[in-house]
Amino acid sequence: MVSSRCYLTDVKRAGDVIDGLKPHTIFHSGPHVEWKRMAGPMRSSMIAAMLFEGWAKTPNEAVRKAEQGEVKFDSSLDHNAISCLCGATSESMPVFEVENRTFGNKAYIALPELGMQFGRYDTKTLDNLVWVKEILAPTLREALRELGGLEMEPIISQALLMGDECHDRTVAASCLFQRTIAPSVVNVSDKKTAIQVLKYMAGIDLFFLWPIMARAKAVADAAHGVEYSTITSFLAGNGTEMGLKVSSLGHQWFKAPSPTFYVAKYNEGFSDKDSNPEVGDSILVDMQGLGGGAMAAGIAHVLSTGDSADDAIRYSKEMMRISVGKNSYFRIPVLNFEGTPVGVDIRKVLETGISQVCAVGIAHNKPGVGLIGFGMVRVPMACYQSSYEAFNKKYNG
Amino acid sequence: MVSSRCYLTDVKRAGDVIDGLKPHTIFHSGPHVEWKRMAGPMRSSMIAAMLFEGWAKTPNEAVRKAEQGEVKFDSSLDHNAISCLCGATSESMPVFEVENRTFGNKAYIALPELGMQFGRYDTKTLDNLVWVKEILAPTLREALRELGGLEMEPIISQALLMGDECHDRTVAASCLFQRTIAPSVVNVSDKKTAIQVLKYMAGIDLFFLWPIMARAKAVADAAHGVEYSTITSFLAGNGTEMGLKVSSLGHQWFKAPSPTFYVAKYNEGFSDKDSNPEVGDSILVDMQGLGGGAMAAGIAHVLSTGDSADDAIRYSKEMMRISVGKNSYFRIPVLNFEGTPVGVDIRKVLETGISQVCAVGIAHNKPGVGLIGFGMVRVPMACYQSSYEAFNKKYNG
Repeated sequence: MVSSRCYLTDVKRAGDVIDGLKPHTIFHSGPHVEWKRMAGPMRSSMIAAMLFEGWAKTPNEAVRKAEQGEVKFDSSLDHNAISCLCGATSESMPVFEVENRTFGNKAYIALPELGMQFGRYDTKTLDNLVWVKEILAPTLREALRELGGLEMEPIISQALLMGDECHDRTVAASCLFQRTIAPSVVNVSDKKTAIQVLKYMAGIDLFFLWPIMARAKAVADAAHGVEYSTITSFLAGNGTEMGLKVSSLGHQWFKAPSPTFYVAKYNEGFSDKDSNPEVGDSILVDMQGLGGGAMAAGIAHVLSTGDSADDAIRYSKEMMRISVGKNSYFRIPVLNFEGTPVGVDIRKVLETGISQVCAVGIAHNKPGVGLIGFGMVRVPMACYQSSYEAFNKKYNG
Repeated sequence: MVSSRCYLTDVKRAGDVIDGLKPHTIFHSGPHVEWKRMAGPMRSSMIAAMLFEGWAKTPNEAVRKAEQGEVKFDSSLDHNAISCLCGATSESMPVFEVENRTFGNKAYIALPELGMQFGRYDTKTLDNLVWVKEILAPTLREALRELGGLEMEPIISQALLMGDECHDRTVAASCLFQRTIAPSVVNVSDKKTAIQVLKYMAGIDLFFLWPIMARAKAVADAAHGVEYSTITSFLAGNGTEMGLKVSSLGHQWFKAPSPTFYVAKYNEGFSDKDSNPEVGDSILVDMQGLGGGAMAAGIAHVLSTGDSADDAIRYSKEMMRISVGKNSYFRIPVLNFEGTPVGVDIRKVLETGISQVCAVGIAHNKPGVGLIGFGMVRVPMACYQSSYEAFNKKYNG
């Protein structure tokens, strides 16, 4: 997880590059979940994808097709992709390509948008999906190609020195990315398009989270499959269940019901009762030592969750206790530039009773509403317990 | 100092807006200093300005004219302007305009460039000055006018949450500024110009320091002239002497020989023996609670000076001890979002023995070399002692 050097290289069509993403198939975040067990916001995201692809004309028709099995669903992380929050990914969507040049593998994520991926399927959301596909995607594709790809670790490293924890707070990384790519955006497009694209990116403080997530998947794939390892290699939620994988234990998800938020701040008019439990693959970033593990670097994020500065510093120290190493390239200023914690060991979690802490966006539990706040969750202990039992069975049985 | 709301409104011609900036006059940083007592890097900056204005054809001719009094020198801060580092400002140069809309006054600073203002007068520097005047200035002028001016406090406030101390570390503020102005830059210029301007701004992490300095001057002018006040209202150095003003004591500078750096990091090939003592008006920013006073917000800057994270936090706490208030809009995450210290009281300095700490760029002591590193200085106690004596004489005499 420490040695990988990843590049944001391209924008491609999802169906052309994501394994198994056939017509009438939609990939979602977290461990695989069937339609009938899907949480409200994830269903919304699937509906939006069906409308976007033209597989349904109305939300009702989309629901009917899903219920009748005419559209298949599967987990992004079980393929070479990753999904943001509710994260539907279907064949016509444009995706970022991140290449792990240390290990040679690639991962994909749908381009940033705050509607479908956060559980909305209204007209504005669908219009925006078309704009993302027809305007944003070709512009960023040409711009990234002009740059010859963009090395991601220097941006993440610098962003951690600029108050990002690089999950829910990525404003610095997004600004650095925008500053780097802006001249190429201008060069490859007409004036009107360039202005639209620059404004769109500037309007999404979280913009660079999407490449960071694809990087996390490209890094996780490289770290998975080490015999005898008790390190968690994947972590994700589908809004119904949260699950983790362990490097030595193949592709089995060790799951538990999705946790709720022990601290949260909501947009006006919303409260705990509106929140869906954790949903999304972005907590893979936390598992790799950004997000919750890097909260001491991104202290200002507590303004969005209700935690204190001391909580933020404590999280990083706690994650160091359950991790086997540090990433000396991803440094935390306030901890005298110690590296972010890397490699959560399920044995250390069970020994200390400290489970992974994750910074998360909160989706409304009703279909069609979207993002309503930010909060913090802990990975359920049951995930560590069942994976440790499986480990013992495999190696000590 | 806390209530001012300032806007970056325009780019104008220095001679049109800066009081007293006539032909064959150059304004410099710090208290007024005659040519014969000027430090090497400041002389270089004056030479560059004379060459740029066409008042001299060669550096030798420029020196001769300066020696013979054919060019006059005066202090920017004694007029409605402020100068960066060595900071020559002459009539043809383009300047940012910052308007203090709370008090109605304005201040000006020459546009960002890293040659003349840092003590160079080579051909590349002079060519760049022409580019700044002919390309950068009109582009930013039109872009700022299209935006209707840019409120500065929200950018500074956000930058402090993003690891800037907002003096020597302003990369976040510069990124936020660039993200905001980029669409307008594209809109008001042709493709080639837009790309040049975006790349130029992206290449200067300190870019937004210039507007921040002009804001500091616009704020200082509004805070100056309060009867019975023992608050320092100005602080600056010319490379020979450092001086401060006290709000109640008119426009007298209380001066001492320029201090050297008690900690510093140099570019490769340079060391303490190459450094000119502190030079520049940017320490006015520190005096207002950014820079040294906000170092706990900009901890990563210690990577550029050789200090530790603990030093950074200590500086902010020390500055709170010698200041009369806090700016609740400029918050420091690691100190549980306490406001930055505002209003250094000369009595508190003398009581505690703690003098103002400032984050500074370091100019080479030989003409023509430029910036060679970053370090920290303390304001000489003599400045506080002599100003306190003057205060006693005026009010208790």
